[in-house]
Amino acid sequence: MPQFGKIAIIGAGNVAYTLCKILKSKEIEPYCIFVRNPEKAAKMHEDLGVETVSDYEKVLESDLSIIAVKDDAIADVSEHLLDYKGLVVHTSGTKSSELLNRCMRFGIFYPLQTMSKEREISFDEIPLLIYANSPDDVEMLGRFAKQFSNKVVFCDDEQRKAIHLAAVYVSNFTNVMLGIGDKLLKNNGLTLDLMKPLVMEMIQKLFEISPEKALTGPARRGDFATIEEHVKMLSDNSQEQGIYKMLTNYILENYQKNEKL
Amino acid sequence: MPQFGKIAIIGAGNVAYTLCKILKSKEIEPYCIFVRNPEKAAKMHEDLGVETVSDYEKVLESDLSIIAVKDDAIADVSEHLLDYKGLVVHTSGTKSSELLNRCMRFGIFYPLQTMSKEREISFDEIPLLIYANSPDDVEMLGRFAKQFSNKVVFCDDEQRKAIHLAAVYVSNFTNVMLGIGDKLLKNNGLTLDLMKPLVMEMIQKLFEISPEKALTGPARRGDFATIEEHVKMLSDNSQEQGIYKMLTNYILENYQKNEKL
Repeated sequence: MPQFGKIAIIGAGNVAYTLCKILKSKEIEPYCIFVRNPEKAAKMHEDLGVETVSDYEKVLESDLSIIAVKDDAIADVSEHLLDYKGLVVHTSGTKSSELLNRCMRFGIFYPLQTMSKEREISFDEIPLLIYANSPDDVEMLGRFAKQFSNKVVFCDDEQRKAIHLAAVYVSNFTNVMLGIGDKLLKNNGLTLDLMKPLVMEMIQKLFEISPEKALTGPARRGDFATIEEHVKMLSDNSQEQGIYKMLTNYILENYQKNEKL
Repeated sequence: MPQFGKIAIIGAGNVAYTLCKILKSKEIEPYCIFVRNPEKAAKMHEDLGVETVSDYEKVLESDLSIIAVKDDAIADVSEHLLDYKGLVVHTSGTKSSELLNRCMRFGIFYPLQTMSKEREISFDEIPLLIYANSPDDVEMLGRFAKQFSNKVVFCDDEQRKAIHLAAVYVSNFTNVMLGIGDKLLKNNGLTLDLMKPLVMEMIQKLFEISPEKALTGPARRGDFATIEEHVKMLSDNSQEQGIYKMLTNYILENYQKNEKL
């Protein structure tokens, strides 16, 4: 079965960093890392011990190019790969695979995870969403991805966009809810740490039995006295009060009443 | 140092159940469990092997009475304890301790956790928020609570109310965000499981470095093209679109722009 021999990574951000580390952890040495900015290239070489290049010569010799640059720069990068014989993939959650369609073989390699240079993450449990414009490349990319993750999922552009939108709710907006909680606690001389057991238990429960079944609280049980008191307590901040009202109404209108706490 | 010898629990719901189990796990046999409803009393006796009573005679002989009934029933229960010599506490997150002020010694014993009969939870890491109307009882209740939890926090009514309001954001509203994510994924033939690594990493990161620093996503980086596309994708559901817009605006207005993913 054909494998990708030489792998090029394009980019110097969090995703490029993490991909390098993951490849190396599986004893796959990247063939080259393309980094335009000399300072970033030096830093990346120093941190990861990889060879960086600043022109596309070596990239064009590789079998798989992983574009891990900002969404808006993907099209520019692909301009340099028009005659490329290998498979070129990008790592964006939102951008269409068609952005690369002037290359012969193109696809997607999207790790569904938040990445930062400072944090070590293991890829084993992280979903890798893949796509390619030919069945052969889907298979080859799938085999490649399975080296790093137990959860390789074939996704078309539509599905990947839905996943990215869902990720905004489950990750970014969830973060905002915890941020507001943090603020309310700080205003009363308390810290968010206090909430960790509650949050962890709620999240575990929700993944086990479904969000719908795990939902509790004043709105869920139709406890209007508490809702009214909470709205009053939030009268200093119209935005946070607005969020409280909107989400409370959403629960009242979309979830069956539940007597449990 | 004085200790509570005989402990009475009043109620047959999730909190009463869990408290019974926790006491027994520390080899403290509840003196009695007051349950008015005979069927619930039989069930509780069967499940937990505890003695239940349906009048207040034995309750009045105890040293500590923990009222674990619905918020609206607390006042009624306390009517039966007007001549009680022991300390009476309730377990509500929202109700004032003053609801019990016709009893001589009163206070709060509020475990900050979501509870259900089906799930075993360990109290060790769960914050127990306590209050009592005399310094002696604060000390005694604190000693009692420390048997079950490493995190016993003295809280006045104001603080406890702020905590309860914060809990609505960090627990109930977070649940709603995951519920909307679940729905968007289901509409595209995918399941919420896919999001578990992302959610867990985001939550861990946020407790480590703060919600503000951990926030990523299109709103945080001011990526209006993606925001616009998301809003379009949500045009079938005005409520979910409304939530997206409101929370995106909240991020745009309250958080500094961040270039990271």
